[in-house]
Amino acid sequence: MRELELIAELESLLRGRGGAGAGSVAQHPPEAPRLTAGRILRWPGDDAAVLRSRPYSVVSVDTMVDGVHFRVEELGPEAIGHRALAAALSDLAAMGAEAAEVYFALMLPPGQDEEWIRCLVRGVGELAAACGTVVAGGDITASAVLALSFTVVGWADDPATLVGRDGARPGDLIGVTGDLGGSAAGLAALEGRVRAAPELERRYAFPVPRLAAGRALARAGVTAMIDLSDGLATDARHLAAASGVHVEITLEALPLAPGLSAAAAQLGRDPAAWAATGGEDYELLFSTGPAGAGAVQRTLTALDVPLTWIGTVVGQGAGSVSFEPDRTPLHGFEHSL
Amino acid sequence: MRELELIAELESLLRGRGGAGAGSVAQHPPEAPRLTAGRILRWPGDDAAVLRSRPYSVVSVDTMVDGVHFRVEELGPEAIGHRALAAALSDLAAMGAEAAEVYFALMLPPGQDEEWIRCLVRGVGELAAACGTVVAGGDITASAVLALSFTVVGWADDPATLVGRDGARPGDLIGVTGDLGGSAAGLAALEGRVRAAPELERRYAFPVPRLAAGRALARAGVTAMIDLSDGLATDARHLAAASGVHVEITLEALPLAPGLSAAAAQLGRDPAAWAATGGEDYELLFSTGPAGAGAVQRTLTALDVPLTWIGTVVGQGAGSVSFEPDRTPLHGFEHSL
Repeated sequence: MRELELIAELESLLRGRGGAGAGSVAQHPPEAPRLTAGRILRWPGDDAAVLRSRPYSVVSVDTMVDGVHFRVEELGPEAIGHRALAAALSDLAAMGAEAAEVYFALMLPPGQDEEWIRCLVRGVGELAAACGTVVAGGDITASAVLALSFTVVGWADDPATLVGRDGARPGDLIGVTGDLGGSAAGLAALEGRVRAAPELERRYAFPVPRLAAGRALARAGVTAMIDLSDGLATDARHLAAASGVHVEITLEALPLAPGLSAAAAQLGRDPAAWAATGGEDYELLFSTGPAGAGAVQRTLTALDVPLTWIGTVVGQGAGSVSFEPDRTPLHGFEHSL
Repeated sequence: MRELELIAELESLLRGRGGAGAGSVAQHPPEAPRLTAGRILRWPGDDAAVLRSRPYSVVSVDTMVDGVHFRVEELGPEAIGHRALAAALSDLAAMGAEAAEVYFALMLPPGQDEEWIRCLVRGVGELAAACGTVVAGGDITASAVLALSFTVVGWADDPATLVGRDGARPGDLIGVTGDLGGSAAGLAALEGRVRAAPELERRYAFPVPRLAAGRALARAGVTAMIDLSDGLATDARHLAAASGVHVEITLEALPLAPGLSAAAAQLGRDPAAWAATGGEDYELLFSTGPAGAGAVQRTLTALDVPLTWIGTVVGQGAGSVSFEPDRTPLHGFEHSL
């Protein structure tokens, strides 16, 4: 009974914070017509959610587990919820899809403080709303280990408006949004390994999925795109492998997060190598033909999203990435606990 | 690297067993056109799956955790995979939806035997194929506790073809598919609490979601429907509450699973009360106007699915359920570990 009450409360919390979608959620008193006209026809509380769809769905699943992807002792509940959803939505950003619905499986250790749970759900609800998405369903269950799994759904009217990892061609330029290494340095600060600005800890705890930039880059005609979850060194390899090309990255060109160099100095590390391997920055890495570079620059400037050109596609290949100067092998993903 | 290899192998295993959907899965060598014409345009391996959709999506999430919904010591890996997916698909059955895609979040304790993992994935893949669905995405991650979370997606061209929990009206008959209590008795046998036919253990370990029956019942015009996961006593209350009615169930009318009475006798239990509270039978409970009873009977007979009329909707109410003879309070869900 306690569990049912908690679920009802969480549903109402998520509903209230459902942002753009919430207004269209149908209410279902027994007197209401069986199915109504909103985008979401049935909310959790029935066996399944029912939603009006568009011609193509874009779906990704992302799970974060305590002790593997974060430590509950290091991260507040709002950050735990926010961060797990951000990672999932970032995959939709990398496709250039419009994010719409979020499905949330929450596994909670018994005896978890209820206010703590509410804060976690608030973290999810606020990011969902900020991204124009709505939590349209989920499952809350007990578990000895705290875990969050999100299935996120985006839509497209035409699959040609979406971008995969496999379209990079020799001669393409490689660009990246924002800056790199902030999340890794933030985690180091959170763990007391370095002193750094609180802003870096926020990079780790509250990453923001680049949904608007992803859609804009897709419209601008980028040829391939991936989000930086495992670190540039690894994710660039994924893009190169899917495209069957060889990519060269200029390490000195990487946009370093403010404060990264100071943090790296405390550890005696090369900041650029750290930026390339740290992971979880959730920036977008993409390729574009040289003729499209101007449009990419304009579209990101219009969104106030920083852009840096960091490399080129130098030829066909089996998916290799080299760094100039040569620091290979660089492997993400050092965040892994 | 080991993890990536395992994921690749699991993807190939799921792809090979993807049944009806698998034939339409697009392959993506670098030379292939960026997006192709199948139902599934992009398979896992990109940031997200891309699928051709239909006008309405029906989505449900179901999670099973070791130590909460099953015990890894009691259940083989194929059953663990099968059972968790069956529970999720059963929610789509209860809506009368056509099940199509399955998204699978798998949380695996480190050091788990690889053949054991393959068997679990095989259990998922075989049920997915048997149900005409395809595993279109997912996430495999480490976790101290084994857990499986499924997001299942069905489709409908017209929401009026779907059935919620909220349409039961005074005068409606209450029917149930199949028989009850088999899963609870099977668990008791598995745990050595009773001796029973192996068939009962199968009821617990390999439940079959009533997808075809659910669609047929929706076409036959049932007014409300729910699947029996928490046990009839609890699930009938959910249906009554959503519909704002009072339901009366005749305990003696419940269809008992073969062997249930013998198992109940060993425990000195009332088999009908056990059938009403055991849970996890994944049969369908539904209401229909008296005029529709003949069509319901014919449609289930045609599918070779047993039907039993077990009660009536006796009036408006706040969602109460009474049993004749009176055995209240009967509460599912005694399976809960």
